[in-house]
Parts: sequence; C-alpha cells; structure tokens
Amino acid sequence: MTDQSSADGNHHLVKSDDPEHPANLIPSLCAKFWNLGWVTGTGGGCSIRNDDLVYLAPSGVQKELMKPSDIYVLSLAAQTDFKNRTYLRSPPIYKPSQCTPLFLAAFTRRGAGCCIHTHSQWAVLVTLLLETGAHAAVSGNKTHPRLFEINNIEQIKGFGKGHGKQGNLGYHDTLRIPVIENTAHEEDLTEYLEAAMDEYPDTYAVLVRRHGVYVWGDNVHKAKTMCESLDYLFQLAVEMHKMGIPWISDIAETLPTSRS
Amino acid sequence: MTDQSSADGNHHLVKSDDPEHPANLIPSLCAKFWNLGWVTGTGGGCSIRNDDLVYLAPSGVQKELMKPSDIYVLSLAAQTDFKNRTYLRSPPIYKPSQCTPLFLAAFTRRGAGCCIHTHSQWAVLVTLLLETGAHAAVSGNKTHPRLFEINNIEQIKGFGKGHGKQGNLGYHDTLRIPVIENTAHEEDLTEYLEAAMDEYPDTYAVLVRRHGVYVWGDNVHKAKTMCESLDYLFQLAVEMHKMGIPWISDIAETLPTSRS
Amino acid sequence: MTDQSSADGNHHLVKSDDPEHPANLIPSLCAKFWNLGWVTGTGGGCSIRNDDLVYLAPSGVQKELMKPSDIYVLSLAAQTDFKNRTYLRSPPIYKPSQCTPLFLAAFTRRGAGCCIHTHSQWAVLVTLLLETGAHAAVSGNKTHPRLFEINNIEQIKGFGKGHGKQGNLGYHDTLRIPVIENTAHEEDLTEYLEAAMDEYPDTYAVLVRRHGVYVWGDNVHKAKTMCESLDYLFQLAVEMHKMGIPWISDIAETLPTSRS
Amino acid sequence: MTDQSSADGNHHLVKSDDPEHPANLIPSLCAKFWNLGWVTGTGGGCSIRNDDLVYLAPSGVQKELMKPSDIYVLSLAAQTDFKNRTYLRSPPIYKPSQCTPLFLAAFTRRGAGCCIHTHSQWAVLVTLLLETGAHAAVSGNKTHPRLFEINNIEQIKGFGKGHGKQGNLGYHDTLRIPVIENTAHEEDLTEYLEAAMDEYPDTYAVLVRRHGVYVWGDNVHKAKTMCESLDYLFQLAVEMHKMGIPWISDIAETLPTSRS
Repeated sequence: MTDQSSADGNHHLVKSDDPEHPANLIPSLCAKFWNLGWVTGTGGGCSIRNDDLVYLAPSGVQKELMKPSDIYVLSLAAQTDFKNRTYLRSPPIYKPSQCTPLFLAAFTRRGAGCCIHTHSQWAVLVTLLLETGAHAAVSGNKTHPRLFEINNIEQIKGFGKGHGKQGNLGYHDTLRIPVIENTAHEEDLTEYLEAAMDEYPDTYAVLVRRHGVYVWGDNVHKAKTMCESLDYLFQLAVEMHKMGIPWISDIAETLPTSRS
Repeated sequence: MTDQSSADGNHHLVKSDDPEHPANLIPSLCAKFWNLGWVTGTGGGCSIRNDDLVYLAPSGVQKELMKPSDIYVLSLAAQTDFKNRTYLRSPPIYKPSQCTPLFLAAFTRRGAGCCIHTHSQWAVLVTLLLETGAHAAVSGNKTHPRLFEINNIEQIKGFGKGHGKQGNLGYHDTLRIPVIENTAHEEDLTEYLEAAMDEYPDTYAVLVRRHGVYVWGDNVHKAKTMCESLDYLFQLAVEMHKMGIPWISDIAETLPTSRS
Repeated sequence: MTDQSSADGNHHLVKSDDPEHPANLIPSLCAKFWNLGWVTGTGGGCSIRNDDLVYLAPSGVQKELMKPSDIYVLSLAAQTDFKNRTYLRSPPIYKPSQCTPLFLAAFTRRGAGCCIHTHSQWAVLVTLLLETGAHAAVSGNKTHPRLFEINNIEQIKGFGKGHGKQGNLGYHDTLRIPVIENTAHEEDLTEYLEAAMDEYPDTYAVLVRRHGVYVWGDNVHKAKTMCESLDYLFQLAVEMHKMGIPWISDIAETLPTSRS
Repeated sequence: MTDQSSADGNHHLVKSDDPEHPANLIPSLCAKFWNLGWVTGTGGGCSIRNDDLVYLAPSGVQKELMKPSDIYVLSLAAQTDFKNRTYLRSPPIYKPSQCTPLFLAAFTRRGAGCCIHTHSQWAVLVTLLLETGAHAAVSGNKTHPRLFEINNIEQIKGFGKGHGKQGNLGYHDTLRIPVIENTAHEEDLTEYLEAAMDEYPDTYAVLVRRHGVYVWGDNVHKAKTMCESLDYLFQLAVEMHKMGIPWISDIAETLPTSRS
C-alpha cells in the first residue's frame, strides 16, 4: 500500500469549526459507537464521503479517543486501485485501516455517503446461530448459504427498500442481510462484499461470519440509524432464539377498524 | 395530512430559557430514552401537553440529537380530525410523526399531560412470550386475547390505580397491560389503542405486539416514572420466564409483627 | 406521620459548597444509582447520618434529578417514635419516604453512617430463585427459611466481617444475606428488618423478597462499595444459576508456593 | 510491608498538567473501567510504568473517584523484595494495593508498560465454565489443567503474538489464556502468575479462577485495547456457551476470490 500524502500534510482538510464536518463527526460518532460496544479494542470503524472526498479513521486507534487530526482523506476519483491507494492527507503516526477498500466499495457501488463497520457481539452471535442451522433461510436457491432473515417486527421499518427505491420496508416485509465468510486479511473481504452487494442489490448491510457487520446509507443519518436498527434486530433475534421464538413468522395484516 | 403551519413559523412557541418548557424537555427526555435503548434508530417518541398546546417530536429524527427547533406544536381544540391535523408551528425540514394521533388519543381520552412511546426490546419480548401461550392471562372473558399480567413485585407500586382514582397499586395487586395487534401503518393503531383504553379504563399503558409500548400520565413526571417502572417489569418478566418463574403468584399478605 | 419542620425551613442544613456534604452527596449518589438501574421509577433511595443529623431523600422523586433542596433532615436523638417522626427541615412539596424507619433502624441498631436501598433486578431475581428451592441454604436451623449464601468468589472480600469486628471476609468465607418477606406497606418492613439484624448480627445487608435490598455501612464509602459488591454477586449468582453452577462450592485453600 | 516514602511526600511526582501523565491517566482509565463494570466495589486496578518509575492506585479506593494525589510511586530499580517495597511517594491516607507485586511481575518479567486487573464478571464466568469441564482445553500435557481457548473470531486479531514477536494473532489462530488458582491473599498469587508467565511465554493475560483477569502490554494503549478485546471474547464465550456453540472450531481458510 503506497501512501503518497502531500508533504505539507493538507491539514486544512480535517480542520473545521463545524461539528458536522466529517473530520469532527467521525470522532464523535466513534466515541458513541464505543459506548455501544460496537468498536471495542480498536475494532470496527466509520467512513464518510462528501462528494469526491472520503474521510477515514486510521487503523488501530482507540475509537473513543479519536481526534480530527487522526483522519485520513482521499479523493475517490484519483484512485486507480483500491488496494494501492493514494491519500490527500495522512496523519503522521498511523496506518490506513484495512477496512478502507470495503468502505470504498459502499461509496462506489452504492453511492453511499457513510459506511459503518461494527464488531457488535449481537452481529457475531447471529452469524454463529446461522452456523447451527437453527434459523436456516428458506428463500430459495442462494449462492450464499447463510442469510439473516426476520419479519413482523416494527423496527424493520427503519430500513430503506433499497438503493434507488423510494420509501422504507414495511412491518410485514422480510429484512434480508447476506452473510459472507470471514477472511484472514480484512482487505480480502472486499471481493466477497462486492459479490454480496451484487447478489442482494437492495441490501444496505452485509454480515461477516464471526466478525461483525458493514452498514451503509446515503448519508450519515441513514447509515447510523440503519446500523442502530439492525443491531437492535440482531439483539432481539438472539433473545428470540433463547426463548424458542422463530425469526420468521406468518402474521396476517391487521387492517384499521374503519376498513376491516 | 395537511400541514398549515403559519408562514412566520411561530418560532416563539418552542423558544424558552426554562429547561422545564416542553420544547426543551422533549429533547432532553429523548436523549435519556436513547441511552436506555427505548428510541433506537429514530423509533419511538414523546409528546407533552400543556393545557391546549401539544408539543411533538418530528418523524425520523435521531432522538439523542433533537433540538427545541425540531418540535411541532398544535392546538388540541383547533383539531377537527386527528388524521388531518393543522399545526401552529412546524419545523421546516421534517414530517410529523405517525405516532401523533396515538399521543392525541392519550391527551383527549385520558386527559394525559405526557405520552411516551418506546420500542424497548423488553416490551417486544413480552409480547412475543405472550404469543407462545406460556403466560396466558387467566382474567376471564377478554375481547383482547393477550394481556400482560404480573403481581407480587414491589415495583408495581409505581403505577397509579387508574384515571380519576386516588393512589397507586399495591404490592399484591395485579398490574394488567393490554396488548393490541400491530398494523402496517402506525396511524392505523389509533383505533385499536382507543378500544383498549375503553376496555381497560384503568390502564396507563398499552403494549403493541412486536412493536413496543405506549405509556401516558397526568404529567411528565408520572408518564416517565411509570414508563421506567413498566420497562423494569418487562425486563424482570423476561428474566423470570428464562428461569421458569411464573409472572402471577399467590402470596398471602404479610402483616406487621405488631399486628400479626 | 406528623411533619413539624420549623417555619423558616432550616434551609441552611442542606446548603453547602462542599460536594461531600450529605445534602450534595445524596443527589449525586442517587444519580449514579439511577444509571446503575438501582432506583428506577422513583424506587429505592439513600440516607446519610452525620453524628445526630440524618439526611433523607423524599418519597416519589426522580432519583437522577434530585437537588439538595429536596432533602429532609432530622435529629436522631429527638425522635421518640420512628413512625411519628419530627423533621428539622422538610422540602416544601414532598412527602417523607416510607423507607425512613428502615434507614433509621440501620443508624440506631448498627451505628451505620449510610444506608442504601435498591430495587436492583439482580436482588429481586435472587429472591425469586430462592423461592424455587434450587439454592436452599444448608446453614442449619434458621428462623428465616430463605438465606442467600455464596462462597469462593473474590468479590466477597468487599464485605466487612461484621459490626464491631476488624477486617473483611476472606475468599473462602461464606457471605450470608438474610431474606425477609415483603409487606404491603414499606414501613411495616421495619420490624422484620430489625429481627433479621438481630438474628444475623454480622450482616450489612438484608434482602426483601420480590422487592430489593437494604445495605448499610459505617460511612458512605463502605455502604456504597458493599452495595456495589453485593449487586455484582447477585448478578453473578443469577448467571451461575443459568449455567447450572452452584452458589456454594467446596474448594480447598491454595497456599503460596513458598509455603506449600 | 514497609512504607518509606520521603517526609516531604514527593508530591511533584504525581502533579502534571499533561492528561497523558500516569498520575492523571490512571484515574481517568479507572473511571472508564468502573463504567465497564471491571472495578466494581474497589475491586481491580491499574498500574503504569514509565521507565523506572511505577505508578499505582491505592488499595480500597472507589475507582471512579480516584485523584492524582491518590497515586503511589516507586522506583523499580530500588526494590530488593517485591513483598517489602519502598515508595518514592505515598498518599497520606491509603494503603498500597495487594495487586502491587502482580503488577511488578508484568513490568519486570515482560517489560510491560501497563498492567490492568479487572473483576469483570465475564472473566469470572469463563473460569466457572472451565470448572464444569464443558470446554476442556485439548492442547496437550499442560501443568495448568485449565486453559481458556478460542479461535476463529475476528476480535482475536486484537492480541499481539507475544512478547518480542512482531505482529498480531490472526483470525484462525487460537488465543490461549492460562487460568491460575485463586489464593486467600492476593499477594500470594504472584508466584502462580509468574509460573503461568513462564509456561505461556506468549500470553499477555492470566485468568484467576473465581476472581478476574490480569492483562498487560508494552504501553497503556496496548494493555487497554487487549483488555477490551479479551473482555469482549469472554462475554462472547459465555453467550456461545448458553447457545451450545463450542469455543474452538475447525474452519478452513477462505482465500480472496482472485487467489482461489
């Protein structure tokens, strides 16, 4: 990986008084995620895209202590190879995150404005439960044998119907999140993530077996609230499993009394 | 839904230095509820009534980030149809919450001063456990087949006996919270909520299957503390279920030694 | 209950710039306890004794919002009847807590300087598990059939050996906390609490069935840290139960290698 | 234990405006650990080494309330006997922590710059589950019969390969943490801790049965993030146990598609 950041550091790219500036927002979001247990022990991360500029947290940093000066910046248009990236601005003492090509996949393939990667235990536990076969997806012939499916829970409404589609999922819709295998090197996940994005064109998230989840959205608001809703559903699914309640149910639509 | 907020915005209705003003209190309460996991991913909400004026959080906002300028205000007396409401003050960039008619039902049918709606997982899990029949209510012929019942827990004393009645429930009393079906559109819940209010005239809360709970009270203090006590009881009930302890027990009253 | 607070309010008794003054400490402790889930929905409380003066939180207040001006003060020596107490200072809009005679019992019978009452779910769950008989105490002929016992856990060292005794319990010692029945009126617990104190002269805590726990200590530091350690042990005991691990075990002492 | 702190107190050793100074960092870290439930009820602790100077929290202090003036300082080179230590600086009202010789073992045997001791319930539960034999280690002839082993979880990458080795463990590597017996007196653990360090030269942590865990690292950053990752894995292991999922699995390496 070649780091060709300019000699003067381009520090102005991460300096702003606006709390909504990506270089300020990434640290405040990561501190919030640390409190939620999503980015424990330097795991996980978050990236924001503002038009052509992409802001990234460095590798191996304590997420609740991050500062704007820790942030990497790159130009999406200037990249020719996501594995050999050039940076407009690099913090002096860090290395770029191995998650970077996965974040870039969300930005280029889905036009996302923000991508969040968590190591939430609920996400990991859902992939472990899927391994046991207790909640095997019954959605037909899938290339990916593992698929998290849940329906008839109000919080499902927190998800958009898919990239380029209007509106959100409904209460009775089934939310489907594909699960990809984990690889020894995080960068090698990229091709599997991209394949899952192609196979599930409407998904805003991909689970990684025994690892965590990637969630993206058109902007920070959408990525963060979908990530929260998904974590809620993963936790609920684990508790439902403990009490023998299936994730998929067949519930007839309840009409308003004036229409019923 | 027609939004007829005045052209000049009536911004003074949400501008106050008093932290107890509803436009300041709703954001601080919602931030607290977000930390409790009650309003994850923009779900849930809170509304306060001050005489004729009703203050409402908008739809789809991150609850821990809400500002007084995000608040809707309407006059209860000026409404002719809760589904086609007119607003005295609307924030410029939001949509009214689908919860609004449900909050208004608590204000008009019960004279409530505050109504809280949570997506707490404990509330959802209680409705899921009731589906399994493991804790079927034995309270006689009910129109609603599902009813959460618990007794002989000290925290039950946190609930009032009912609208217009003096005092709170006792340790040996049975707390009963009706469960209504969830509908595809949240506004359509209104008629079911109103029916449950009619059938259970003493209740201060209604569970919504696979969705969450609505809790109200004469004022913010009562609505919030009853919502906390109820969430405590839902969590306890889930843990009791896991350990095979029934929610209803038959415990004789213990008299003070001086009287026994 | 007669409230004979002086006409001028004795406000100076709760006004101090010292954060360690009981009138400042009770609110800051209660806010901390609220975050721990110990005093949800106005349940539970805390009282501090400074020589003859006793500082008490009022009834029905939101514990995370308490202010020094909310605090009651009474002279221990001036009381002739704990059920008909006189106050040196009463907040204008509140009622005294029903916990007051229980706190006073810890101050007069044990010379405690602080008493904490929590509704912690872990405490309640331990009393519910004891009801099932799965963890029946085997400590001989006891008047109280229910007794929480645990040994061979490091955190047990957080407890003193007993009132008037030097030092703390050891790793291999058995911590014993008696459980009393709950009464319909909290004040009626007093006689049962006092009987448990008499029967277990070394205990610093009494569990109340389906209600919570009372914990006291010579000073705020000791009461708070023992309450934390006890809540830790209650939670651990519930988790041990879920995994089939008994609370009492027979483990031989491990000697240092230089002595073995 | 002889405390020979200088008469003038050497207070300058714990006085600094730099938040990264050990005397400031130990209190801020301990407050964070208290919120994580790692140092409940004065249990657990933290020590930092800066070249020859070692900074230590005192015994029996409330960890979320610690101040720089509470910190002990000693010179590592000046010690002749870890059980009879001399201090450069001692706080006036406290006693040295019984953990001190265990922290010193990490500093002298491993050249660690920071050592953290937690009473985390997840660590204790893991040692309790190992007692049951349900997760017996199958790593050959070990002097210590109990060993926590887990593999194929992404968070394992949060650990270094071992003292003096480059890089971190991989996803497919097995993390091994030895478990030592608990002793009645914490200082007596030292010899067992040292024996475990000798037997497992690559480990950065040692579990103590029914007690907690000691974790160290080259510096504060590494000790803290490894302690977080380990606590994450302990919690995950307990949840995996509850759902019947083994801690050790046999998963073939997934290659990047371009190489497969």
